[in-house]
Amino acid sequence: MDSAALLDLLGNENRRRILRLLARKPCYVTEISEYLGVSPKAVIEHLRKLEEAGLIESRVDDQRRKYFHIARNVRLEVNVSPYGFASKSAYPSNNSFDITTCRHLSLDVTCDDLDDLDELLSTLEDLEQLENELSLAQRWVQGRLCDVLDQFSETVGGGPESRIYADVLSSVRTEPKSIGDLSQDVEVPREIVADVLESMADRGIVRRTERGWELTTSS
Amino acid sequence: MDSAALLDLLGNENRRRILRLLARKPCYVTEISEYLGVSPKAVIEHLRKLEEAGLIESRVDDQRRKYFHIARNVRLEVNVSPYGFASKSAYPSNNSFDITTCRHLSLDVTCDDLDDLDELLSTLEDLEQLENELSLAQRWVQGRLCDVLDQFSETVGGGPESRIYADVLSSVRTEPKSIGDLSQDVEVPREIVADVLESMADRGIVRRTERGWELTTSS
Repeated sequence: MDSAALLDLLGNENRRRILRLLARKPCYVTEISEYLGVSPKAVIEHLRKLEEAGLIESRVDDQRRKYFHIARNVRLEVNVSPYGFASKSAYPSNNSFDITTCRHLSLDVTCDDLDDLDELLSTLEDLEQLENELSLAQRWVQGRLCDVLDQFSETVGGGPESRIYADVLSSVRTEPKSIGDLSQDVEVPREIVADVLESMADRGIVRRTERGWELTTSS
Repeated sequence: MDSAALLDLLGNENRRRILRLLARKPCYVTEISEYLGVSPKAVIEHLRKLEEAGLIESRVDDQRRKYFHIARNVRLEVNVSPYGFASKSAYPSNNSFDITTCRHLSLDVTCDDLDDLDELLSTLEDLEQLENELSLAQRWVQGRLCDVLDQFSETVGGGPESRIYADVLSSVRTEPKSIGDLSQDVEVPREIVADVLESMADRGIVRRTERGWELTTSS
């Protein structure tokens, strides 16, 4: 599911409380309604939305009671900063994904040989610590990205728009580009790309050649 | 700001579109209203909520026009899985945070010597790749956590409640605990902890001694 749909669902306090409850144990409507202090009718409506999105499912037990549980494994990340607003959602990767292919990152956790309880518990602990460290690392990266863009904004100009400046420069760094190509690359209208290039040309950072726009430092 | 407040704000499509717009460049009300196709009155109301939360700020320019921009750097993460629902929000860490103290994770990116444009651009690229890899790693961890809890649920029982079973076992693993201590540790009512312990005692996984509840494998 896309991040917009997920944010719409999670933007409601009672739906978040329902998910928190169902993450503990499967529940039926009356239980949820009593726990939340919300009418069964409203609970049913929330459940319907969550079920339609595939986040929850129901199962009927021997006493014909309908129990709801969380059906899906999904992860949402949102970054808000003066240099960007981005949200993405994704399903967990399956076992075949090779985490060692990462170029900038290495993990020290093994998930094999889960034969006995002790190994299961220690792997669980390691994974939970790793999850925490990955969050810290992402906060660190977001901090550094802002530092770099701040410094960028000093060097190249652009102020609050320096993200676009940076994207344009990154794009022309590898090879000369036309305004049309750049507009596609950085997903910004041609007029804005043209303005950005003019402003950086005035500062001697880029130049126009017959091959297209390029860094003045490129040979 | 806490993750609930952030989710409430981001749960609205027009507020997300406003943030996306402001992340590109500072805007004034009429601009936003025309871009979104939403009345200025509604835009002002959205801006008020975003401003109250500290996510955006305004500045008045020479022509007395009030421009809004994103003021805050914040990160939100939500995990939904059959074994849990967790959301957290955090500010980026500042430079003094030492990322090398992580036990399970090492990063290969340097952010020093940002003297010239080329270094800035290549650091920016590295950080963006690292951000991507960290997301992949988190999806990998979430997948493995589910695998481990699935297997846990087979070994120990508990089915959809196996997260509580795992938390209880992790807690008694280091030292014997009373039901009261466990209830605090895993943040679950005493009755549920007692049920979980009984069920695992029946399976020969834990036992009660005079020091408290402990793993049967502990000596």
